[in-house]
Amino acid sequence: MPRYTAPTKDTQFILHDVLKISESTIPGYDELEADFTSAVLEEAGKLATDVLAPLNPVGDTEGCRLENGIVYTPTGFKAAFEQVKEGGWTGLDMPEQYGGQNMPAVIGSAVGEMFSASNQAFTMYQGLTHGAASAILAHGTDAQKDKWLPKMVSCEWTGTMNLTEPHCGTDLGMMRTKAEPQADGSYKITGQKIFISSGDHDMADNIVHLVLAKIVGGPEGIKGVSLFIVPKVMVDDNGDMGARNGVSVGKIEEKMGIHGNSTCVMNYDEATGYLLGDEHKGMRAMFTMMNEARLGVGMQGLAQADAAYQNALDYSKDRLQGRDVTGAKNPDGPADPLIVHPDIRRSLMEQKSFAEGARAFILWGATMIDAAHRSEDKDADGLVSLLTPVIKGFLTDVGYDMTVKAQQVYGGHGYIEEWGMSQFTRDARIAMIYEGANGVQALDLVGRKLAQDGGKHVMAFFDLVKTFIKDNAGKDDAYDAAFLEPLKAASKDLQAAGMYFMQNGMKNPNNALSGSNDFMHMFGHVCLGLMWAQMGKAATEALANGASDTAFYETKLATGRFYMARQLPATALHLARINTGADTVMALDAANF
Amino acid sequence: MPRYTAPTKDTQFILHDVLKISESTIPGYDELEADFTSAVLEEAGKLATDVLAPLNPVGDTEGCRLENGIVYTPTGFKAAFEQVKEGGWTGLDMPEQYGGQNMPAVIGSAVGEMFSASNQAFTMYQGLTHGAASAILAHGTDAQKDKWLPKMVSCEWTGTMNLTEPHCGTDLGMMRTKAEPQADGSYKITGQKIFISSGDHDMADNIVHLVLAKIVGGPEGIKGVSLFIVPKVMVDDNGDMGARNGVSVGKIEEKMGIHGNSTCVMNYDEATGYLLGDEHKGMRAMFTMMNEARLGVGMQGLAQADAAYQNALDYSKDRLQGRDVTGAKNPDGPADPLIVHPDIRRSLMEQKSFAEGARAFILWGATMIDAAHRSEDKDADGLVSLLTPVIKGFLTDVGYDMTVKAQQVYGGHGYIEEWGMSQFTRDARIAMIYEGANGVQALDLVGRKLAQDGGKHVMAFFDLVKTFIKDNAGKDDAYDAAFLEPLKAASKDLQAAGMYFMQNGMKNPNNALSGSNDFMHMFGHVCLGLMWAQMGKAATEALANGASDTAFYETKLATGRFYMARQLPATALHLARINTGADTVMALDAANF
Repeated sequence: MPRYTAPTKDTQFILHDVLKISESTIPGYDELEADFTSAVLEEAGKLATDVLAPLNPVGDTEGCRLENGIVYTPTGFKAAFEQVKEGGWTGLDMPEQYGGQNMPAVIGSAVGEMFSASNQAFTMYQGLTHGAASAILAHGTDAQKDKWLPKMVSCEWTGTMNLTEPHCGTDLGMMRTKAEPQADGSYKITGQKIFISSGDHDMADNIVHLVLAKIVGGPEGIKGVSLFIVPKVMVDDNGDMGARNGVSVGKIEEKMGIHGNSTCVMNYDEATGYLLGDEHKGMRAMFTMMNEARLGVGMQGLAQADAAYQNALDYSKDRLQGRDVTGAKNPDGPADPLIVHPDIRRSLMEQKSFAEGARAFILWGATMIDAAHRSEDKDADGLVSLLTPVIKGFLTDVGYDMTVKAQQVYGGHGYIEEWGMSQFTRDARIAMIYEGANGVQALDLVGRKLAQDGGKHVMAFFDLVKTFIKDNAGKDDAYDAAFLEPLKAASKDLQAAGMYFMQNGMKNPNNALSGSNDFMHMFGHVCLGLMWAQMGKAATEALANGASDTAFYETKLATGRFYMARQLPATALHLARINTGADTVMALDAANF
Repeated sequence: MPRYTAPTKDTQFILHDVLKISESTIPGYDELEADFTSAVLEEAGKLATDVLAPLNPVGDTEGCRLENGIVYTPTGFKAAFEQVKEGGWTGLDMPEQYGGQNMPAVIGSAVGEMFSASNQAFTMYQGLTHGAASAILAHGTDAQKDKWLPKMVSCEWTGTMNLTEPHCGTDLGMMRTKAEPQADGSYKITGQKIFISSGDHDMADNIVHLVLAKIVGGPEGIKGVSLFIVPKVMVDDNGDMGARNGVSVGKIEEKMGIHGNSTCVMNYDEATGYLLGDEHKGMRAMFTMMNEARLGVGMQGLAQADAAYQNALDYSKDRLQGRDVTGAKNPDGPADPLIVHPDIRRSLMEQKSFAEGARAFILWGATMIDAAHRSEDKDADGLVSLLTPVIKGFLTDVGYDMTVKAQQVYGGHGYIEEWGMSQFTRDARIAMIYEGANGVQALDLVGRKLAQDGGKHVMAFFDLVKTFIKDNAGKDDAYDAAFLEPLKAASKDLQAAGMYFMQNGMKNPNNALSGSNDFMHMFGHVCLGLMWAQMGKAATEALANGASDTAFYETKLATGRFYMARQLPATALHLARINTGADTVMALDAANF
C-alpha cells in the first residue's frame, strides 16, 4: 500500500525562508510564526498520514454505492470525516463568526495539499463544501449566511456546485434547468445536473446544493443564469430540518478514478431554491466558487504528483535491478537499487523539482489571495486572477504527467492495482478536466486574462521577474548562472510570445488561440522558474548564514539547478510553436479530418 | 460506445504511394499489388469493426475470472477467436509448411494495427502466440517445429512468454526458476512467473508456455538462463494430448487496463519442459520473441492513439459548445461544434499527424524486417535493430499521450467509463511498460544500439535522411520549406546529440545515459519527420500527376506541414537537455532525495 508523508519541512521552508510570511503586513500573518505553522502542519500531516492515506485505496476499491436513493461512502470514510470535523480542519480559514478559525488562505492551502495528497476523493467532500460556503459568504444575505454557514463551516452539512448538464459543460448559456419564482420569494428548481462531485452521501445530515438555473422569463443565454441555494433537506427559520426537498440522485457515475467521491447525476423536481446574489448574475456568484476551486484543483495536480513521487522514490531505493554502469553501489547484494540508473534519476528529479516548485507556486498564490482579501490589495487580486488558469492548467497537466512517471518507475508493478500507483494517475486525471477543462484555462488566459485591465497584470508579472533578477544579480556567479540567466531567458521567451499574440491576434484571434496551450505551459514554466530562483536564493542565504541543515539547503539548490537546466528551456519550444500561428493548426476543413 | 474504422485508405497510401511495396525486390512483395492488399485490409477491417471493436468495452468491464483453476475470458471472446482463426488471420505471415499464408510482415503489421486498435486485450492472445511460434521457428529442432507450430499457427493452441519473476523484471540474471535435467532429455521446471499475458484462458485446448529458467548447476546470472517449451497439457509424439503438466495459475492480476487479457501469476511445479535452442542461450532465443514483441508493442501505441483519435474527432464534430471566435459556423444551432475551437484543433492535429506518421514508421519498419528475413539484407536488419527501441519507446510514450489528448476532447465525458475514452488510456498505458519499460528501450538505444557494429547503422540512418533530402530538394520551394528544411534541422539536432554522447559518454557514461530518454524521443521525431517528408513527397507527386482525390492528398500535405512546423522542433529541446549532461541529473546522493 502506498505511503504518504506530509512535506512539512519543505512547506516550512517555503513559508518562512522564501515567502517570509510572518514578516508580511497582511492582517493575520503576524501570527504565523514558524513554531505555530509547524504545529499546525504537523497535526494536519498526522491526520493525512495516519487516517486519510490508509483510506485512499479503500475508496478506490470500494467506491460509492447508491441503494434505494441513499448514497453510501466507502468503509471508514464516515469515521474519518468525523475526525476531520472534530479537529476543526473544515473551518480553518473560515470566519470565526461562523465557527471557523480565521486563518489565512496560505495555511489553508498548505494543509489542503496534505489532505488532497493523502486522499483526493475524500478531501473533495470538504473542498466542495468550502467552495459553496465561500460563495454564500461573498454573495449571501446576512440571513442566508447565518442560516447556512455555521453548519457548512463545521461540515455538519456539506455543499456542492451544480453547473454541468448533459448537453452543456463549458457553454453554460445553453443551460435548461429552470427556476420558477414563488409567491414567498423562493423558486421552484427543475432540471438535471450531471458530474456533481459529492452530490450525495451518508456523511452529513444535509447537503447544500448551489445550483445554476434560468429564471423563467429571464434573458436568453448566459445572461439569464442565476445561482440558487437548494438544500437536500428543508431547513426552517429556526434552523430545524424538515421534509426532504425535491432533490434526488439519478445515479452515481462510473469513473476512471476518484471512486471514493460520489459523482452524481442530480435531479431537481420542483425543488425549493433560494436566490443567492442577484437575479441573472449567477455566473458572477459562481465564479467566486470557481476561482477558489481552480486554485484548489491546481493544488490537486501538485498533491497527486507529490504522493506518487514519494512512493516512486521509496521503490527506487528498495527495488534491486541491474548495476550502476559506473561501478556497483550495492556490491554485496544481487543488484543495485533502481535509483542508481540515470534514467530513473532523471524521472525522479523531474518529479521532485516539479513538486517543490509547484508547492512554492501554490503557496505564493495563496499569499496573493490573502493580500487581496485581507489587505484589499488590488494588484495582488489582479495578479492571482491572471495566474489562476496557469495554476489550474499547468499544474494539473504536468502533475498528471508526473504521476505517470512515478508509475513508470515501478515497471509492471505500476500497472497492477495492488501497488496503488495506478490510482494516483487515475485520480490525477480528473484535475485536467473539472472546474474548466485545461483548454478552457488556456483560452481564459490568452483570450481574457492577458488583456485584463489593459494588460496591467501581465506587465506587473514581467516587472516582478525583472526586478527579482535585477535585485539579486551580481552577488554570486554560480547562482546567477544556474538560476537568474535561465529565468531571464525563459521570461524573454514568454514576453516574445505575448508580443506575437499582440501583433498577430488582432488580425486573426486564431493566431493567438492556436498557441494558447503552449502559452499556458510556458507561463507555468516561468512561474516555476521564478519560484526556483527564489528558493535558490533562500537556500544560498541560509547556507551563507551558517544554517545547520546544510544537506537540506544543498539539495534544494541541486534540485533547482536541475529544473532550471533541463525543464525551463521548454519555453523555447513553446515559443517556436506559438510563432507558427494558426496556419497549420486551422488549415483543414472539418470535413477533411 | 466507441467506434473503430480501419484506416484502409491511409494504409494503402503508405504501402503503395510511399513505400511502393509491389515494386520492391523483396521476395513475395511482387504479389502485393494494390488490389490484393486492399482486399486483405478490407476483410481485416470488417472483422475489426464488426467483431473485435464491440467486444472491447465488454472485455474491459467483465475482465477475466479464475474459478477452480480455470480462467474464463469475457463474454464473446471465444466466439470471436473462432472467427479470427477461421479467417486464417492467425497465420497470415507464418510459413505455409505450418499452415500459414506466408505473407510478408508488412501485411501482418497493417492487419495487426487494425486488430490491436479495435481490441488490444483480445489481440494479445494471438499476438503472444505469434511471438512464441516465431521463437520456436527460429530456434526449435525440426521435431519441435513439427510438433508445436501447426497448432500454434492456427491458434488451436496459444503461446506465452514467461520472463518476469516477483523480484526480477529487467534484470533477468536474478531469476530463480530452475530446470532440472531428466534422463529422457526433458527438464523439470519449478518456479513462479508473474505478469504472464494470456497466461491461461478458455479459448484454446492447450497453451504452449515459453519459460526462461536456469539449468541446475549452470553458470551464475544471465549466462545460465535457458529457454524451455512447457505445455499446459502434455502432448505425445503422435500429437495426442495427455495429462495436465505441472503448470497452474496462481491468480489473475487486477490491472489498470487490458482487462480482457488474462495476466496471470503462473506456478511451475516440476513441470515438464523441453529445451528450446541451446543450453544457457535462453536470452538469445527469447530475444527473437522480444524484438518482434517490441515492434508489436510500438504498433499498439499507434493503434490505441488512432482508435482514440477517431472517437475524439467524431465527438468534436457532434458536440455543440461555444462559438467560433471568428464567426459562428453553425448559426442556426445553439452553438458551434467543438472542432471550430483552435485548441481542440491543435489537439486533433497532434493526434492525426502522430497516427499517420507512426503508421508509416511501423510499416517502413516491417519492410525492413521483410528485407532482413526474406532477402537476408544485413543493412536492413541492422537498421531495424537500431530503430526497434525507438519504435517501441517513442510510439508508446507518445501514443499514450495522444490517448490522453483524445480523452480530454470529451471533457467530463472522457472521465466517465460509459464513453469508453478512459479505456483507451488505461489500455495504452501498459505499452510503455511491457516488453522492456521505455527507460530500458532508451538504455538499449544509447547504451548498445548506437555503437553496434561500430556505429554503422546510425550512420546509415543519417545517410538515408541526407540522401532523401539531397534527392528531393530544389524541385518545389513550398515542399522544401515545409518538409525538407525542418527535417534537415531536426536531423542535425539528432547528430549533435550523438556527437555529445561520443565526446562525453566515454569519460562518464552517465553523460550519455542521462540523455537517453531525450535521445529516444528526438530520434522518434526525426523518424516521423522523415516519414512525413516521404508522405509529403508522395502527395505532391500524386497531385502533380492529376490524382482525382485531391482532398485526400491536400489533407495529407496539410497534416504533414503541421507535424513539421509544430512537433518536429521538439528535437531542439531534447538536444538542449542532452547537452546539460549528467551534472544536474546525478547531483544528489540517494539519501538526499
